Amino acid sequence: MTEPLSPVLVLAVDDDVLVLDLLQSALEDGGFQVKTALGGDEAIAALEMNRARDICAVVTDVNLGRGTNGWDVGQRARELSPGLPVLYISGDSAHDWTSRGVPRSLLVQKPFAPAQIVTAVASLINQQIAAPDGHS
Amino acid sequence: MTEPLSPVLVLAVDDDVLVLDLLQSALEDGGFQVKTALGGDEAIAALEMNRARDICAVVTDVNLGRGTNGWDVGQRARELSPGLPVLYISGDSAHDWTSRGVPRSLLVQKPFAPAQIVTAVASLINQQIAAPDGHS
Amino acid sequence: MTEPLSPVLVLAVDDDVLVLDLLQSALEDGGFQVKTALGGDEAIAALEMNRARDICAVVTDVNLGRGTNGWDVGQRARELSPGLPVLYISGDSAHDWTSRGVPRSLLVQKPFAPAQIVTAVASLINQQIAAPDGHS
Amino acid sequence: MTEPLSPVLVLAVDDDVLVLDLLQSALEDGGFQVKTALGGDEAIAALEMNRARDICAVVTDVNLGRGTNGWDVGQRARELSPGLPVLYISGDSAHDWTSRGVPRSLLVQKPFAPAQIVTAVASLINQQIAAPDGHS
Amino acid sequence: MTEPLSPVLVLAVDDDVLVLDLLQSALEDGGFQVKTALGGDEAIAALEMNRARDICAVVTDVNLGRGTNGWDVGQRARELSPGLPVLYISGDSAHDWTSRGVPRSLLVQKPFAPAQIVTAVASLINQQIAAPDGHS
Amino acid sequence: MTEPLSPVLVLAVDDDVLVLDLLQSALEDGGFQVKTALGGDEAIAALEMNRARDICAVVTDVNLGRGTNGWDVGQRARELSPGLPVLYISGDSAHDWTSRGVPRSLLVQKPFAPAQIVTAVASLINQQIAAPDGHS
Repeated sequence: MTEPLSPVLVLAVDDDVLVLDLLQSALEDGGFQVKTALGGDEAIAALEMNRARDICAVVTDVNLGRGTNGWDVGQRARELSPGLPVLYISGDSAHDWTSRGVPRSLLVQKPFAPAQIVTAVASLINQQIAAPDGHS
Repeated sequence: MTEPLSPVLVLAVDDDVLVLDLLQSALEDGGFQVKTALGGDEAIAALEMNRARDICAVVTDVNLGRGTNGWDVGQRARELSPGLPVLYISGDSAHDWTSRGVPRSLLVQKPFAPAQIVTAVASLINQQIAAPDGHS
Repeated sequence: MTEPLSPVLVLAVDDDVLVLDLLQSALEDGGFQVKTALGGDEAIAALEMNRARDICAVVTDVNLGRGTNGWDVGQRARELSPGLPVLYISGDSAHDWTSRGVPRSLLVQKPFAPAQIVTAVASLINQQIAAPDGHS
Repeated sequence: MTEPLSPVLVLAVDDDVLVLDLLQSALEDGGFQVKTALGGDEAIAALEMNRARDICAVVTDVNLGRGTNGWDVGQRARELSPGLPVLYISGDSAHDWTSRGVPRSLLVQKPFAPAQIVTAVASLINQQIAAPDGHS
Repeated sequence: MTEPLSPVLVLAVDDDVLVLDLLQSALEDGGFQVKTALGGDEAIAALEMNRARDICAVVTDVNLGRGTNGWDVGQRARELSPGLPVLYISGDSAHDWTSRGVPRSLLVQKPFAPAQIVTAVASLINQQIAAPDGHS
Repeated sequence: MTEPLSPVLVLAVDDDVLVLDLLQSALEDGGFQVKTALGGDEAIAALEMNRARDICAVVTDVNLGRGTNGWDVGQRARELSPGLPVLYISGDSAHDWTSRGVPRSLLVQKPFAPAQIVTAVASLINQQIAAPDGHS
């Protein structure tokens, strides 16, 4: 049985350590537990090993340097877990969100205040859980 | 396999034959197939026999005369099929909707134009189906 | 007592007779009863005489020729009836909606299909009535 | 006259003291004042004595041990105050929300992060107050 | 200048002529003008030639036979026109919508009533136009 | 280029220093940077000098003493920057919001908890940025 007070785990993904730290500390201040990934491949590996479905939301920068980007992370996350909350962070790729983002995701543009991340993740998780039986 | 062009069935419930006729003709003009019930008990019987899950939405007057009322119909519908779209029609019981209605239902107040019924039912069904995997 | 089958009256406002006719016939096809006003002053007079609260929604072009415009009509409608559904129609003033429209209004841009008007008006009325006790 | 800086009171209901403490401290960190009830009967008594309408929102666990449960608390709260924001907390009864919850409520599933509670309560209160005149 | 009464063009895409006819007649009954494409490649060609931005919305089946599918059509439509309303129709691929659909799209599941298509397209266009200055 | 970690600036407007302090400290706790204005004229001057578009949101009391009020501030903010998030604070003018507020604004009623301000501002900014290409 799930413990009422067990942690809620969020996967935060960024190739910039400073932004990743900012995401982690904002989410931890909101009471979330944070698992970090420094790039897209590491993020997708974490999602694929997530057999116990511990990860409750993904926060990913869109630009992750070479290779796998944030759009790939979002799509893979939803293939593995169709209703997983996805939040994109972007400095300059926001214009691609309408063609490359997944449905019912959010995008927060840099620069952002920590409260924007916490509010977005909390809202996405709350909306997801409010529809426990498969209907919106 | 479901036929692409097979009908979409809506259960319409009213103890007033004139209103029931109006509901039926509005929904049929929108291309829905309509099954009618002249009271709450008849409506609940139809829902309980609905093993093939043919019924895609319920439109019910709140006041159904003596006995089972529209709030009971909405609650029983959701117990049997947790995400079923529910639309209440009411002349004077609208003030009870916030305590007696089910979540994510709508209430249309009498008098109503036929387009209000069609738009409400279509919107409720569209939103439900847009979340096919159990998340909103 | 309100008759269940009595009409739902919408005030349609345009200084262009062709557009006004199009609005009227679209709304009547949706089962609404339509009262027309050929300009802003006529619209506001109709709203001010509306003591019985017969008018259930206002559809107004933004550009009404000289004098009173659609933004004035929307604001006056809400002063007289704070939750009245308001739909603006606009060919080229849509960019002013965010500063001059009223909250929870919609704006449909010309050219429009009749179904856009009917769906917008029906949705606005349905949302209003779903909160019969003063809370959203 | 209401003081601008007077407290905003939230009624938190749980039969598990640990969860109740967690709810209280999360809400107090968000700047809310919290009144606690250790069960459903105590919660309903608090709501019935709430003549000054001090209580601005209710957060209730669904499972409150024997007797009155969280669904009962939510329904009674809305009977007394039709637009009161209601947030349910649930470990394993989330599947009943669509048939037993009240309209426009939210359900947060255990385990939860404190920010989910604060965001849900703040959003529900903000939406309620934004419709001061009885329309959504 | 755009004529107030000029048509609103919707691109409907299906490889099944029967469903395409149904989509066309439903949309035309709602007052839309319809351009049809019998497959994904034909749909993308129509979108790429759409220099005058005549196409106001895309309705596409997900399964379009061999080659280009509806997810591809939706993504290409948004690359060319970032806010274009996109409605997917699906018999059995609805579970992929959360990973392969574009944000702010809708999915209507087969079988559907004609009113569901008209309501979905009208709602998507109305929401788009209501944000004329680039903000939601 | 915008620094990922540069501040997000919110303009807070109140003629009551105590409330202004409360707004400032709530927003700063959420990680926003705050610029304060002690009245409507000062607020509008700040908005008109905002050539670099540094201001990301406006939080304004409705009642600002003599002269320019919060409704004027909201309307001027939107004329200068059509999608700017606007949050009104009000003790007793909430009933005017539906006629005098701008679309897609929120109103928080006094007394309020700090979390209501942070959640409202964060939600308004997140929704705005999620539609980077001019469509909702």
